[in-house]
Amino acid sequence: MDENLLGIIAGVLTSVAMLPQLIKVIRQKNADDLSWGMLMVLISGLSLWVWYGFLKDELPIIISNAFAVIVNVTLLICCMIYKKKSS
Amino acid sequence: MDENLLGIIAGVLTSVAMLPQLIKVIRQKNADDLSWGMLMVLISGLSLWVWYGFLKDELPIIISNAFAVIVNVTLLICCMIYKKKSS
Repeated sequence: MDENLLGIIAGVLTSVAMLPQLIKVIRQKNADDLSWGMLMVLISGLSLWVWYGFLKDELPIIISNAFAVIVNVTLLICCMIYKKKSS
Repeated sequence: MDENLLGIIAGVLTSVAMLPQLIKVIRQKNADDLSWGMLMVLISGLSLWVWYGFLKDELPIIISNAFAVIVNVTLLICCMIYKKKSS
């Protein structure tokens, strides 16, 4: 299979799988299940994958990880807005 | 920065960020927050990333996505064992 096509399909699947959590948090206005510390670790890792994608000049890696950064930064913002309980 | 080192650091960060959910589900013996449908989509996507890594011969991509497959297959198994409520 063409590598780029494979990467795009893989990226779409892993991106789609992220959305339900984001939708749930926004709908319920509740981010108690999220850990901002882990989100920061995840966002750092995903940002490095974007950098890796640029170094390797691989568009599927850049796009899917950049999308994941956007989703998780949004979750982090939700975390800051909605989180009430001490954690 | 060396591309492989960057990929390894990125992979470690995104892998570490996955573990708290797995630990929480196993400790609480509760998988009600998980959706087996989304786990299947995620595992499919991650498996394709492993395949992509093999095609491109990129070890950081292979290792980090293979690890993610293992974590999410474990979550899927937990889902089948612990999930009680209709969903």
